[in-house]
Amino acid sequence: MAKTLGILGGLGPMAGAYFYQLVTALTAADCDQDHLRVVLTGFADTPDRTAYILDPTRPDPTPQMIEAAQTLEKMGAQILAMPCNTAHYFYDAVANSVRVPMLNIIEETLRLLCEKGAKKIGLLATAGTIFAGTYPMRAEKYGLVCEVPTAAEQTVVNEIIYGQIKQGKTPDIARFEKVANSLFARGCTHLVLGCTELSLLGQTFHLDERYVDSLYALARATVLACGATLRT
Amino acid sequence: MAKTLGILGGLGPMAGAYFYQLVTALTAADCDQDHLRVVLTGFADTPDRTAYILDPTRPDPTPQMIEAAQTLEKMGAQILAMPCNTAHYFYDAVANSVRVPMLNIIEETLRLLCEKGAKKIGLLATAGTIFAGTYPMRAEKYGLVCEVPTAAEQTVVNEIIYGQIKQGKTPDIARFEKVANSLFARGCTHLVLGCTELSLLGQTFHLDERYVDSLYALARATVLACGATLRT
Repeated sequence: MAKTLGILGGLGPMAGAYFYQLVTALTAADCDQDHLRVVLTGFADTPDRTAYILDPTRPDPTPQMIEAAQTLEKMGAQILAMPCNTAHYFYDAVANSVRVPMLNIIEETLRLLCEKGAKKIGLLATAGTIFAGTYPMRAEKYGLVCEVPTAAEQTVVNEIIYGQIKQGKTPDIARFEKVANSLFARGCTHLVLGCTELSLLGQTFHLDERYVDSLYALARATVLACGATLRT
Repeated sequence: MAKTLGILGGLGPMAGAYFYQLVTALTAADCDQDHLRVVLTGFADTPDRTAYILDPTRPDPTPQMIEAAQTLEKMGAQILAMPCNTAHYFYDAVANSVRVPMLNIIEETLRLLCEKGAKKIGLLATAGTIFAGTYPMRAEKYGLVCEVPTAAEQTVVNEIIYGQIKQGKTPDIARFEKVANSLFARGCTHLVLGCTELSLLGQTFHLDERYVDSLYALARATVLACGATLRT
């Protein structure tokens, strides 16, 4: 019997919706009833994660994230997934607030990178994720070296996430690729789409196999962890 | 203050995920926090609606739909939307099981058709929706005449919904358009995508302005009913 999945979404809302879509698309199913039973919270009003990580005098998103996790548990979720990389800075606080297990998007992405034979990875993520160091901190145990954009390049990545994708505007793919190419030039074998808003780029633009999407990594792990079968 | 939206999804799962995505895309927002607060159930294991409508000796989906509506209310939903046309056969039972209001996809679609100046509409939907008569029953009060496919054509529509889209396969757009053209030939000014699985066709194929998508109609009405602003 497959487990009920709790999606802690809303961080941002489009990434949460796309994650649910991805989990559905990745599940082997001949009819509705073959799919996972899902509950989802999209508490979009949760304070901005990056803002708090960079400046802890700003509103703390933790209480709302804990509220979401506990709501999902009360609704019957048996396993949680939180499709937001930046929010994983708060992973311990959220995961420890419930009795059910919560998958970790950073771990799943690093595992997928290893499967793909990555050596040196470039991190495309929010300033919050970069500052928090969640990826480099865990990359080491997988034998991966983690490269980040320069300050000027990071400004471009932030602008694409906050000034374009989160506002529903068309992202500037040329500027994105300039940052990506700079990371490849520094010897990165693979680039991590380490922000679930950047995962949305893959819906519109073709990104080759050197890009590893954290949202895909989490979705794949989620299908398996819930006991469903991956669509072949 | 915008209302918390409860999405009674899972009927099917892909349509529910796409509906959440559509609501998000249609909301005017400059940042995550401008979006609606959402809770969603995706009880994919709910028995098939069409099967029960056509043969009431089959498992009744009503108890699970009521459980979903009440779960959403308990999670804080202040207004409900159920992105599934076939399930609206059970609308009264579900809507009456909770204290919060529930939007009606059939009414919202018929309203949008009127806005577009429709006179005679052709209904593309599951055999369950066709048999239940939910559209023609309500179309009259809007001054709309409702045409349905022939039995042979309906077999094609069912096959596209159940044998292709719900199974994650590429839908046969040529066969779909043959049915559509037959309805246009019978004088229909507009065709209703009256099954939220058919709404998914619009993600892959270009359907002209004579097609009115029930999922879009519900999403637009939902944004407004929750007190958010439509993106222009």
